[in-house]
Amino acid sequence: MSGIPICKRNSLLLRIGESLKSRKAEVLQANAKDLEDATNSGIDASVYKRLLLDESKLSGLLDGLRELAELGDPLGRVTLSRTLSQGLLLERVTCPLGVLAIIFEARPEAVIQIASLALKSGNAVILKGGKEASRSNAALVDVVRGAIAEEGGFPVDAVQFVSTREDVAGLLALDEYIDLVIPRGSMKLVRDVKAATRIPVLGHADGICHVYLDSSVDGEAAAPVVVDSKTQYPAACNAAETLLVHPGAIASGAVMVVGRALLKAGVTLHADAVCLSALKECAEPSKNENQPIGTVILAQQGDWDTEWLSLHMGVACVPSVEEAVAWINAHGSHHTDCILTQEDSSAAFFMANVDSAGVYHNASTRFADGFRYGFGAEVGISTNRLHARGPVGLEGLTTYKYTLRGEGHTVAQFSRGERAYAHYDHLDLARK
Amino acid sequence: MSGIPICKRNSLLLRIGESLKSRKAEVLQANAKDLEDATNSGIDASVYKRLLLDESKLSGLLDGLRELAELGDPLGRVTLSRTLSQGLLLERVTCPLGVLAIIFEARPEAVIQIASLALKSGNAVILKGGKEASRSNAALVDVVRGAIAEEGGFPVDAVQFVSTREDVAGLLALDEYIDLVIPRGSMKLVRDVKAATRIPVLGHADGICHVYLDSSVDGEAAAPVVVDSKTQYPAACNAAETLLVHPGAIASGAVMVVGRALLKAGVTLHADAVCLSALKECAEPSKNENQPIGTVILAQQGDWDTEWLSLHMGVACVPSVEEAVAWINAHGSHHTDCILTQEDSSAAFFMANVDSAGVYHNASTRFADGFRYGFGAEVGISTNRLHARGPVGLEGLTTYKYTLRGEGHTVAQFSRGERAYAHYDHLDLARK
Repeated sequence: MSGIPICKRNSLLLRIGESLKSRKAEVLQANAKDLEDATNSGIDASVYKRLLLDESKLSGLLDGLRELAELGDPLGRVTLSRTLSQGLLLERVTCPLGVLAIIFEARPEAVIQIASLALKSGNAVILKGGKEASRSNAALVDVVRGAIAEEGGFPVDAVQFVSTREDVAGLLALDEYIDLVIPRGSMKLVRDVKAATRIPVLGHADGICHVYLDSSVDGEAAAPVVVDSKTQYPAACNAAETLLVHPGAIASGAVMVVGRALLKAGVTLHADAVCLSALKECAEPSKNENQPIGTVILAQQGDWDTEWLSLHMGVACVPSVEEAVAWINAHGSHHTDCILTQEDSSAAFFMANVDSAGVYHNASTRFADGFRYGFGAEVGISTNRLHARGPVGLEGLTTYKYTLRGEGHTVAQFSRGERAYAHYDHLDLARK
Repeated sequence: MSGIPICKRNSLLLRIGESLKSRKAEVLQANAKDLEDATNSGIDASVYKRLLLDESKLSGLLDGLRELAELGDPLGRVTLSRTLSQGLLLERVTCPLGVLAIIFEARPEAVIQIASLALKSGNAVILKGGKEASRSNAALVDVVRGAIAEEGGFPVDAVQFVSTREDVAGLLALDEYIDLVIPRGSMKLVRDVKAATRIPVLGHADGICHVYLDSSVDGEAAAPVVVDSKTQYPAACNAAETLLVHPGAIASGAVMVVGRALLKAGVTLHADAVCLSALKECAEPSKNENQPIGTVILAQQGDWDTEWLSLHMGVACVPSVEEAVAWINAHGSHHTDCILTQEDSSAAFFMANVDSAGVYHNASTRFADGFRYGFGAEVGISTNRLHARGPVGLEGLTTYKYTLRGEGHTVAQFSRGERAYAHYDHLDLARK
C-alpha cells in the first residue's frame, strides 16, 4: 500500500464515489431493511436519524470523497533533510501507519468516510460497525471493495469488515498486527476499547471543556462566545460544560450579562454559592427582555466533573487566573478550554499553562474540529499526549521512516577520524 | 514546568554540571561502595565496567550537559500557523509530554543524562536505576535535586528517584499520571515493561537488522560496510544480524569477497545451503592473506529470527529484491535495514517497501543513533510506529497543543454565513 502513487489513491476515491452513485438503489434498499428492523425493535428518533441513509447524506459523501481526493498527499513528505557528512544524506519521510481498526456506532456513512481516509493515507483498515446498521454497512463495504477491485493495483483486503461483538474482542487482542484503534462513538465505547486493548487508541473519552471569564472581560462581547460554546451543539465533545468566573467579572456585572444570555438560550446553570447569589436575579422575568427559559440552581457535588452534553452548565467562582488554570487541569479532560479576556497577560498565562489539546482566547470551544482547523477530513479528536493531539486529520494516520543514503560510509571511518559529521540541514523541504 | 523559560532550563543544566564537579568526591565515594559490594557478590567484568564512575565518565557527563545546554529549545516551537478566518489565528505549539518514567540498568551516569534531557524538555521524570548502582544513583540524584533547589524556580520534585523492584510495579500501574515509560537496558527489560503497563512505552525490544547484497553489488565496496554493520559494536541494537544475498552477488563473487572480510573479522557465518557452498572455500586458509578466524557453518532453524549481539551472522540467499524486502518485513524487528547496490531502482524499491524505522542504501546500519543523526542527545531508539520512530531526541519528549486566538468568534457566525473560513497558512514558522 505504501508504494501506490497518489494519483492512483485519488483515482480510487473518485471511483468509490462513482460506484456509490451507480449502486445507490442497492445501498438504499439495504438501509431500508436496517431501518425496518430498527423501527420494529423500537429505537428512538435520534438513532433512526443517524441510521438513515438518504439522497442528502449520499451526496454529502460524494462531496467528501471529491474534497479528500483534492487534499495533498500525506505520504512521502520529507520532514527532515540533513547531510550527516559528505555524501551521507539522512531524510525523514512520512509513510502509512499500517493497519487501522475502526470501531463505530450507528452512522453507516462512516464506512465510506473512514475507508477513504485510510486509503488516501495508504493504510489498510478493518471496520466494525454497529449491529443495527449491519446491512447498510455490508452494502457500503461491498461498494468500496468493488471499486478497489475495479481500480486494480490495490489489495482488495485493504478494506475489511467485521460485524459481531466477538470479532471486536478478537481484533483488540491483535496488538502484533493492528497499529491503531480508533473508536468513534460514545464515551462508553471509547472507555471500553481503551480498557480492553494494548493497541494504541486514538480518541477521547470525555470532553469536559471550560470557559473562563477573566476579571477584565466585557460581558457583551463574552456572552455570544459562551452561548456558542455551550449551545451551538450541546451533544458535541467540544461543547463547554463549566463556566469559571473571576470575582472581578461578578463585580463588573459581566457574569450577569453572560448568565442572562445563557438562561435565555435555555441553559440550566448549576452555580456555586457565590455565583448563585449573583445570578439568581438574572433568572427573574424582566420587563425589557424575553422571559428567561433556563434556571439557576445550586451546584451539587460531582457537577464540576460532569460532561452534561445537554443544556446544563456548571458555574463556579475562582479567585484568579492561576486558580482557573489549576481547576481546569484538575477537573477538565484536556480537550479544549477557553479564556475570555481583554488582558494579554492573563491570556498568555492561561494558554501556556492549561494542559489541553486546545487552549483558546476569545473564541468558542466549538472550533475544536478537523474541518474548522482546515484539515479537510477528520479522523477524530485525540486527548492523548503521544502521537496526534487535538483534531486529527490525515497526518495522524501516518508515521515516518528515516532513509539514509551513503557511498559505502562506515561508522569506523568516523571513529578513526577519516570522516567528520557535518549535520547540515537542508531547509527547502517539500511542503504542501 | 512548561512555563519555565529556556534560559533558566539551560542555566540549570550548567548548574548541575558545576554541582557535579564540586561534589565529585561524594559521588565517587558512593560509587566505590557500590563497586565494593558488586565485587564481593562476584559480578562479571562487563557489569563492573558499566557500574564504574571515573574521571573520564564524569568529564563526559560535563561535556554532555554543556552540549545539551547549547541545543535549541524543543518547547514553544510553532509547527503550524493558520488564519482560519479574519482575526482567528490557529497555531500548533510544542510543549512538554508531562511525566516520564525511566527504568535503566547498571550505568549510573544515566541519572545525569536522563534528568538533563527531561529538564531541558520541561518534563518531570521518575528514575528507577539498577539495584547494584543504588548508592551511586542516590548520590547523583541528590546532586541534581540540590542543583534544582539552588537554581530556584523549578519544583525540586521534577526529578524523583525510586529504587526497589516493587516501586517499578507501582509506577507501571500509574497510567493516569505517567505519560511515557522509557526502559533503557536489555531486551528482557523492555519486554517485561511492555507487558506490564498500559502507559505508552518508548523503546525497542529487538534489533534484528539486515544487510542485503543486491545483484549488482561491488564486493570490494560492500565488504567494509557489512563488516562495520556486524562488528563495529556487535552488542548494539543497530548491529546487523543477517546478511541476505541475491544469486547475482554469488555469481559475481561479491558474496565471497564480503564473506572473506567477515571471516577475517572473526565472524561465524550461519549460512543456508546455497550460501554455505559458496562461502566454504573462503574459510580455507589462503597463502595470500591472513588466516580467517571465523568459520562457516550450516544455519539452523531459528537463526533468521535471532539477535546474535555477538560475532555471529546469518547468511541466506533470496531470489530478488522483492523477496529480500518480504524476508526483512517478516523476520526483522523494524529497526534498521540496509541495501548495498549500485542500482537505483533496487534501492528505491527497497527503501519504499522495507517497513523499518531506518532504511539505508550503501551505509552501515550502525549509523542508526541519535548522536550520529545530529539530535545532540538520545533518549533511545523506538520501533513503535506511533509518536517517535527511530532514534529519539528531545523532540520525542514533547507533544503539542493548538492555540486559537479570536476576537469573540463563534461557530454560529460561520453557520449563518456571516463569516467564512480562509485557512490561510503562514509558512514563516519559527525554526531553530
